[in-house]
Amino acid sequence: TVESDVSSSDGDHETDFTAAKSIYIVSDGTGWTAEHAVNAALGQFDYCLVDRGCPVNTHLFSGIEDRETLMEIIKQAAIEDAMVMYTLADPSMAEAAMRACKLWSISSLDILGPITDAISSHLGANPSGLSRGVTNSSLNEDYFKRIEAIEFTIKHDDGALPENLEKADIVLVGVSRTGKTPLSTYLAQKGYKVSNVPIVSGVDLPRTLFEIDSRKVFGLIINPVVLQGIREARAKSLGLGSGFETKYSELRSVREELELAKRIFAENPSWPVIEVTERAIEETAAVVLRLYDERQSNRAMPRISKCY
Amino acid sequence: TVESDVSSSDGDHETDFTAAKSIYIVSDGTGWTAEHAVNAALGQFDYCLVDRGCPVNTHLFSGIEDRETLMEIIKQAAIEDAMVMYTLADPSMAEAAMRACKLWSISSLDILGPITDAISSHLGANPSGLSRGVTNSSLNEDYFKRIEAIEFTIKHDDGALPENLEKADIVLVGVSRTGKTPLSTYLAQKGYKVSNVPIVSGVDLPRTLFEIDSRKVFGLIINPVVLQGIREARAKSLGLGSGFETKYSELRSVREELELAKRIFAENPSWPVIEVTERAIEETAAVVLRLYDERQSNRAMPRISKCY
Ligand SMILES: Nc1ncnc2c1ncn2[C@@H]1O[C@H](COP(=O)(O)O)[C@@H](O)[C@H]1O
Ligand SMILES: Nc1ncnc2c1ncn2[C@@H]1O[C@H](COP(=O)(O)O)[C@@H](O)[C@H]1O
Ligand SMILES: [Mg+2]
Ligand SMILES: [Mg+2]
Repeated sequence: TVESDVSSSDGDHETDFTAAKSIYIVSDGTGWTAEHAVNAALGQFDYCLVDRGCPVNTHLFSGIEDRETLMEIIKQAAIEDAMVMYTLADPSMAEAAMRACKLWSISSLDILGPITDAISSHLGANPSGLSRGVTNSSLNEDYFKRIEAIEFTIKHDDGALPENLEKADIVLVGVSRTGKTPLSTYLAQKGYKVSNVPIVSGVDLPRTLFEIDSRKVFGLIINPVVLQGIREARAKSLGLGSGFETKYSELRSVREELELAKRIFAENPSWPVIEVTERAIEETAAVVLRLYDERQSNRAMPRISKCY
Repeated sequence: TVESDVSSSDGDHETDFTAAKSIYIVSDGTGWTAEHAVNAALGQFDYCLVDRGCPVNTHLFSGIEDRETLMEIIKQAAIEDAMVMYTLADPSMAEAAMRACKLWSISSLDILGPITDAISSHLGANPSGLSRGVTNSSLNEDYFKRIEAIEFTIKHDDGALPENLEKADIVLVGVSRTGKTPLSTYLAQKGYKVSNVPIVSGVDLPRTLFEIDSRKVFGLIINPVVLQGIREARAKSLGLGSGFETKYSELRSVREELELAKRIFAENPSWPVIEVTERAIEETAAVVLRLYDERQSNRAMPRISKCY
């Protein structure tokens, strides 16, 4: 899915915009849950989204807590021939949305309700019906853990402060452009303290890397040709030209750095080596955490467990 | 929701663990979509989760692409009396999960299917049935935009490189502990380049802050007593003691810094001032982006629009 702000689209996209089908996302909270689910489902239509065979626009309306605004949005959806996906904690709001959509023949879906109901039966407890704006669970243990993790991770980006490696939950080792920084901050958002250590020709790895618990170290590797492609696309997106000469030398230096990485990984066989080529950040994160559990717990079926 | 790894729980939690109801989350992908949805739904049970009146454990199984592993997980769910929430792109896998759960009287819910079906009808296109492991949409425009945003944001944390402020999409201004860094990295994950500028007594704000397009500047403010509480909790979680003396002087300096912030915001009335007290990072992010759209587009009903 090629994603961009509709507002910043150029003339070409403008034409598509009118042809595109709209999905309205409405939440009394942030809307991120529904957006996440819609994005995953849109993955099922990648085959026609890429060539804009079935162009789609999403419009996210967050913080919708009163019925008047809700009705205005649904009216607008009717005008734009949009469908409506909603997460509304107050059952009367959810019902109002459902009825209005029915009345105006808009296709709609309650994303939160079925999940809440299923959990309610499982727990034998009733949902509060209160939206996240009303309940206040931000200042808990988890909040501090997450903030600590993010601050730690930013301070320990790109090999900084190697003397603190043992304080990290996860240590990522790899050559440039394997996405160490984005992966680190993604894991940090999930509460893990991450340090990342670059592999650079001619620069020694910090001694501490070989002294810490090796179960938290992960190697990242990438296909050199694809990596080269990434670097080129990146140079292009930055408006930089790339002559054949530089391309060739880059590919060579990339290959050399990757050879070095492979040698280091071979010398440290206890580090799992994760192939990041053509994986999105969140996919690599899932692989890291799966292996993390496996190495910490020795479970046959790795899982990420949490208690609430 | 107080969240922590089950594996790292102490003796006390161990007892709760056996009493807790389990929710199994199964995905052929990362599992983050289903986890996000389950977390939102669990918000509806905060009232009994906080005092562990209805303790819950979630167990996330990601990358489940073969039927054998799927069946093993569901068998384990039956043993643990867990319910199963799943996102499986292959309809035959989703059906197998549904049937097995029925057979073993496990309550279960397909989180992806209904959303995909609704979108399918709306677009008049069939879902591919291919999981994210099979389709490869990671190396698109969006991927580079996101990586750029994350790298920019990390480089421009805490007032660094003020000469680049005009290159940011969003500039956050506020005193320490208003969560500028976590908020910045969260917005960066969504593709926005963010700079954050701290307000510190005795330190001048960078001149560039007053020269850039003011529509991208946002002030952050916090309740001083709550901020003090946050700082205390933080000191406690770090194992630091906090005497009355330090507490008093802290509260005074916090108040002074907040007074300074208020004066600066009053002198720059075009900057919206966002109250972050008791808001989770993602909630403040939603408010920022809502205001961002409002200021860029002058729409009556702010929205975040994307085209695919
Ligand atoms: N902590 C919470 N307490 C109550 N409701 C929540 C909580 N977190 C999320 N929700 C609800 O879950 C849905 C999705 O949340 P959001 O992702 O913020 O749009 C909304 O209806 C929210 O009101
Ligand atoms: N880009 C994509 N292409 C196809 N399916 C996807 C894509 N992204 C997510 N999905 C599917 O959506 C569900 C949720 O994804 P995940 O959040 O990775 O667990 C899974 O069944 C994935 O296979
Ligand atoms: Mg939502
Ligand atoms: Mg999922």
